[in-house]
Amino acid sequence: MRRVYLTNIPRKEALKRFLERVEIPRRREEIPVSQALGRVTAEPVLARTSMPGYHAAAMDGIAVLAEKTFSASDQNPLLLEPQRDYRYVDTGDPLPEGFNAVIKIEDTQAREDGRIEILAPATPWQYVRPVGEDVVAGELIVPALHPLRPQDLGALLAGGVAAIAVLAKPRAAIIPTGSEVVPPEAPRKKGSVPDFNSTVIAAYLQEWGADPAILPIVPDDRVRLRSAVEGALAEYDLVLIIAGSSAGSEDFTASVLEEVGEVLVHGVATRPGKPTILGSAAGKPVVGVPGYPVSAYLSLEWFVRPLLYRYRGEPEPERERLPVTLGRRVVSQLGVEEHVRMTVGYVEDRFIANPLTRGAGVTMSLVRADGVLIIPEESLGYEQGETVELELYRPASALRYNLLAAGSHDLIVDLLATALKERDPRLALSSSHLGSMGGIAAISKGQAHLAGVHLFDPETGEYNLPYLKKMLPERSDLILVNLAYRMQGWMVPPGNPDGLQDVRDLAEKKISFVNRQKGAGTRLLFDYLLKQNNISPREIDGYEREEHTHLNVAAAIAAGTARAGLGILSAARAFGLDFVPVGEERFDLLMTESFYRSPAGETLLATITDPAFIGQVEALGGYSLRDAGTVYR
Amino acid sequence: MRRVYLTNIPRKEALKRFLERVEIPRRREEIPVSQALGRVTAEPVLARTSMPGYHAAAMDGIAVLAEKTFSASDQNPLLLEPQRDYRYVDTGDPLPEGFNAVIKIEDTQAREDGRIEILAPATPWQYVRPVGEDVVAGELIVPALHPLRPQDLGALLAGGVAAIAVLAKPRAAIIPTGSEVVPPEAPRKKGSVPDFNSTVIAAYLQEWGADPAILPIVPDDRVRLRSAVEGALAEYDLVLIIAGSSAGSEDFTASVLEEVGEVLVHGVATRPGKPTILGSAAGKPVVGVPGYPVSAYLSLEWFVRPLLYRYRGEPEPERERLPVTLGRRVVSQLGVEEHVRMTVGYVEDRFIANPLTRGAGVTMSLVRADGVLIIPEESLGYEQGETVELELYRPASALRYNLLAAGSHDLIVDLLATALKERDPRLALSSSHLGSMGGIAAISKGQAHLAGVHLFDPETGEYNLPYLKKMLPERSDLILVNLAYRMQGWMVPPGNPDGLQDVRDLAEKKISFVNRQKGAGTRLLFDYLLKQNNISPREIDGYEREEHTHLNVAAAIAAGTARAGLGILSAARAFGLDFVPVGEERFDLLMTESFYRSPAGETLLATITDPAFIGQVEALGGYSLRDAGTVYR
Repeated sequence: MRRVYLTNIPRKEALKRFLERVEIPRRREEIPVSQALGRVTAEPVLARTSMPGYHAAAMDGIAVLAEKTFSASDQNPLLLEPQRDYRYVDTGDPLPEGFNAVIKIEDTQAREDGRIEILAPATPWQYVRPVGEDVVAGELIVPALHPLRPQDLGALLAGGVAAIAVLAKPRAAIIPTGSEVVPPEAPRKKGSVPDFNSTVIAAYLQEWGADPAILPIVPDDRVRLRSAVEGALAEYDLVLIIAGSSAGSEDFTASVLEEVGEVLVHGVATRPGKPTILGSAAGKPVVGVPGYPVSAYLSLEWFVRPLLYRYRGEPEPERERLPVTLGRRVVSQLGVEEHVRMTVGYVEDRFIANPLTRGAGVTMSLVRADGVLIIPEESLGYEQGETVELELYRPASALRYNLLAAGSHDLIVDLLATALKERDPRLALSSSHLGSMGGIAAISKGQAHLAGVHLFDPETGEYNLPYLKKMLPERSDLILVNLAYRMQGWMVPPGNPDGLQDVRDLAEKKISFVNRQKGAGTRLLFDYLLKQNNISPREIDGYEREEHTHLNVAAAIAAGTARAGLGILSAARAFGLDFVPVGEERFDLLMTESFYRSPAGETLLATITDPAFIGQVEALGGYSLRDAGTVYR
Repeated sequence: MRRVYLTNIPRKEALKRFLERVEIPRRREEIPVSQALGRVTAEPVLARTSMPGYHAAAMDGIAVLAEKTFSASDQNPLLLEPQRDYRYVDTGDPLPEGFNAVIKIEDTQAREDGRIEILAPATPWQYVRPVGEDVVAGELIVPALHPLRPQDLGALLAGGVAAIAVLAKPRAAIIPTGSEVVPPEAPRKKGSVPDFNSTVIAAYLQEWGADPAILPIVPDDRVRLRSAVEGALAEYDLVLIIAGSSAGSEDFTASVLEEVGEVLVHGVATRPGKPTILGSAAGKPVVGVPGYPVSAYLSLEWFVRPLLYRYRGEPEPERERLPVTLGRRVVSQLGVEEHVRMTVGYVEDRFIANPLTRGAGVTMSLVRADGVLIIPEESLGYEQGETVELELYRPASALRYNLLAAGSHDLIVDLLATALKERDPRLALSSSHLGSMGGIAAISKGQAHLAGVHLFDPETGEYNLPYLKKMLPERSDLILVNLAYRMQGWMVPPGNPDGLQDVRDLAEKKISFVNRQKGAGTRLLFDYLLKQNNISPREIDGYEREEHTHLNVAAAIAAGTARAGLGILSAARAFGLDFVPVGEERFDLLMTESFYRSPAGETLLATITDPAFIGQVEALGGYSLRDAGTVYR
C-alpha cells in the first residue's frame, strides 16, 4: 500500500548504526582571534611570544639594584642617588637596565634634593613580573578541540597569537519537501502547510555549531527531489530532508536516498519521532526528518546533535536529571520508547510533574515543556504519585520558581504570567487547562499552586465556596482569592446569523454547538442553563463535541464547523465573533493558605491588585477586577 | 601622593550601591522571527492565526461523515461510495466540507469498483486535528522577557507571527586607556603593553547579550579622556574605561568621571579586582575596569553582568557549587574577599582542588581554572585537607574526567593533553608544575592522577625508583610508567658567547645563571653536577634565582637577564637559544596501580604508545620514546 516502515529499531541502536557509518570530515580555517569566541581549536596552540616580554615593575615605586641596598635599615637609612641608584617606575614599566628589584613607593621617602631614603633592603627580583609570568613563549595556551571562551582569547593575544586555526562549521543543507508546503511568511490558505520546521531546525543546528542553509521547498516529485539532494550533497557536509506532512513525501525521501546512497535506518521505535530516516550518500550523512514538528526536533536531537558534537570533539552536554512526583498517570505502549514532554513545579516541598499533550504536531508542547519523561520500551507507563526521573530542559534551580496554574483557562492567567515575570524574573507561570473541577482536584493533591475556578452553585446562588466545602470539607487550609468577574455569553458567527438569544434557541433552532470538556465551569454553567429551561442534552446538536479552552471553542466557530459556543468575551473578540452576554461570573484562584503567605503568593497578590495590571485586563473587555485580591474562606 | 583608593567597600555592597543608582533603559526593536534566536521578547506575544488553520486529517485514510457509519460492524460491513461517502485524505489535508471524521487507511478495504468497505463505525471528529490544536489565535505563545529558543521560533511562525518586538542589545563602549597601551596586533616592543583586555571584555559582553564596540586607545591625558568619555556617553548605553597598567590612567578615570558624572565606588574590598571604579554619568553606568586582566574580568562579572541580566529581565545564571578537598593550604588576608582560581580533579573518589597562581596579571590562571574559591573577608584561609565549596566554571560531571598532572613540567605533557582529548573528548589534562619531588608528594596524598618525575640517584645510577622507595617505602600501590628519555643541557644565548661547555665554566667564568625551584629534578641534577665537581652553590652567580619551568628559564636567557640555565632542548628551541647537551634522563609518570588500570589510565597508555604520538614528540628533538609505556615497580 502506502507508507511502510522498513525498520522499527531502538533509538540507541539506530544512533550506533548511523554513527558507525557516517562522519563529517573535519575542515579547518584560519580566523582572527578577535572573532574566535565560541569556535573550536583545530590544533594545540602554543604561545609565540612571552607576556610580559620583559621584566616589568609589578608595583609603582623605584627600581633599584638589590645588592646596593643590603645595608639599609631603620638604624642606618640609605640614601639613593637619582638615575645612578634608582629610577621611578610605574606598574608595568620595563625594569631599567642594571636594576633588578622594585621598592614600593610607600616604602620610600623622597627628599628635596632628589635623593630617596630607604629603611630596608630589597631582595633581588622583588616586585618584578618576570618575562613570561603570564604566558611564556612555547607554552601550551589551549589544546586542540577546545571551545574558545573570552579568557582564552586574552591568553592567545597575550601569547602573540593573532590568528588561529579553528574547525570550520559544518555546512548543513535543509531541504523542505511537500507539494502542500509553503514558505512560513506566505499568506495562509486552506490546504497549504507553512514550513516553519526549516527555521527551527536551522536554529538548532546553529546552536550546535553548524552553518545551516535552508534550500528551496521541493514538491512531491521524485526527480526534483533527487536533483535537489544531489545538488546539496555536492556542496554541503550534511543533508537534512524534511518530509512534508503527507505520506508521499516521506516515501520519496527514502527511495531517493536509496538511489543516491544507502538507507541505514527507516523507522525508529520511539514516539514521537518514529518516521525518521538515517542514511549515507557520498560518505555524507543524510537524514530524513519527520514532518511533524515535535518528531522533527526530537529526532534532530537524537541523531544530528551527536554527529555535530563528535565533529567538535566535545562530549554532548548532559541534561540535568530530576526525580519528580507524577501529578497524573502516564501510560505508554509496549515496544515503543515514549518521550513525554512535562511541566514541573515545586509544590509543598516536592517537585510535581504533569504531562503535556503528546500530539507530535503540537509545537507549543515543546515551548511549555520543562523536561521530558523517557518511558522505556518495556514499560507500560507510570501511576499518579509515582516518582520518576525527568531529563530537564530548564535547570532544577529555576523550576523551583515555576508556578503551576491548573483549573479553568482564562486569558488573564496568560497576562499574569508576563506581569509576574516583570516583578520577579525568576517566576514562571505555566498553566494546564483542567477545568474548574480538575483544578480543585489538583490543588487538593498538591499538584498545583493555584487553580482558576468559576463554579456557580444553583442552590445558594454563590460561586466556588459551596463546591469547595462540598468537595473538600476537611481542607480548612484552602482559600479562594478573587481574580476577576468576567462576562460569559454565546459566541456566534459575526452578525449572529441564527439569531441566538438564549439556550432555548439552541435547542429549538438546532444550532450546531461546540461544548467544553467535563468539569469545566463553563460546561457546568451550560448544564445549569439547560436544566433551568428543562432542555435535555440530547436536544443539543454537538453537546458531545468538546474543546478544552475558550479560544478553541471560538476557533471552531470561526472555522465554520460549529455555529455557537458558550465562552468569554475576549475569546470571541480574538476571532471576530459576535457575543451575546449571558451573565457575569466570579473567577477565583484557589490556593493553600501557605502559598498565599509565601513570597511568590505575595508577589501574586501585589500583581493582581496593581492598577496597571487591572487597567490592562479591563481593557480587554468583559472583565471587572473590582474585587481582585479579596479572600474567601 | 599617587594612587589613593577612595573606598574599600565589600563587593556586594558596592554592587547594591551601583544597581540602585544606574539603569540601562530598555529599548526595543522589531526583527524577523527567523533572526530572533537568543533574543529576548519585549512584550507578550499572542498567536495571530491558528495552527492548523482548518480541521485537518491526523492520519492517512478516508474522510467520512461519522453519523453515516454508525451501522458498520464485523457482521454488517458498510460499503462507502467514493465522493459521496468518503474521500481519500493524507495526514495534514483539510477535512473536506461535509465530513467530520477520518478512518485510518489500514482499517479500510478498497474494492475494485472504487467503493470502500469498513467494519466499524467512526466517532465524530476521530483522527481529526481540530483548528488551533497546535496554536490557537489569541493564545499566549511566549511571555515578555523570554529568551527565544529554537522551538519558540517554530511556535511563533505557527501562530502567524513573522516579526517580533525584542529588546535591543545594550550598546557598550569599551575605552582602552594608557599611553603605554597599543593595539593587540601591533608589533611588540619593550615598554608597550598590548591591549588584549578590550577583546576579552567585548567577548564577555557579547555572551551577556550586549553589543560592544571597542573605541580607540586614549593616552594618559585628562582632556582627551574626558572628550572620549563624553563622546561615548552620547552614543552608548554603558561605558567601560579600561585603566592602563600604570597608576596614572586609573586616576584620570576617577577624576574625569567626577567631572562628567559621579563616582559611586572607587575601590572594592576584593583581591583581585580592588581598583574598580563604579560610577554614573548622564544617568548611564560608567565602569572603570582595572588594567590587570584577571582583575578586569572578575570585576566585569561582578558589576556589569548583573546590569545586563537585569536589562534582559533574566536571573543571572548561578554557578554550580561543589564541595572539594583542598590539596594545598590557601591563605587569605583579613578584610579582603579573595577570589582564588582553582583546578579540580576527581582522584580516588573525591574532588581535589588546588589553587592556581593568584597574580592578577596571569590570564592563563583563568584559562586553566575549573572554578573559583571565594574566601570571605573575615577568613584567614583554609588548611590543606579541609573541605571547601567552589563555584565551578565547568560542570562537576565534566570535572570527573579531569586528569590532574603534578610534578615536573615537560612539553610532552602539553602534547598529551591534546592527544588524550582526541581519543576521548571528555578527558582534560591539567598540569601544575611542582617539580619531581612535589609530584611524588602530590601522588602520595591523592592530590593528582599522575606526576612527571626525573630524579637521578647518584648512588645507584638509576632514575626515580630509588627516590620512590626512599620517600614512600610503604606505598606498594604506586608504579612508574616511562614517558620518554629526554636530553638535558645548558641553554645559552645564540652562539654560546661565554663558551659554556660544562658546570666548571659556570663557576670559573662567573656566568650569570638562572636556576629551577627546589624539588625540581633539573635542580637536583644541577646540584649533582656541582657536587661531582666540588663546586659550592655560592660560586654560582644566580643560584638563588628560581624559575618554575624550562620555558621560563629559557625566556630569562632570551631576555638577557641571565646567560645560562639548565633545561631541555625543546625549551631552548622555543626561544632560539643554543643548547649544549649534558645527558639523557628518564622521564617517568608516577601513578597508582588503580589509576593505571582505570579506563582513563588505559587511554593514557594507548596514547603514549601510539606511533603517531611518538612521532610527533620525537620530531620536537631531544626526546626518545623507545621505552614509553614500560612499567617500573
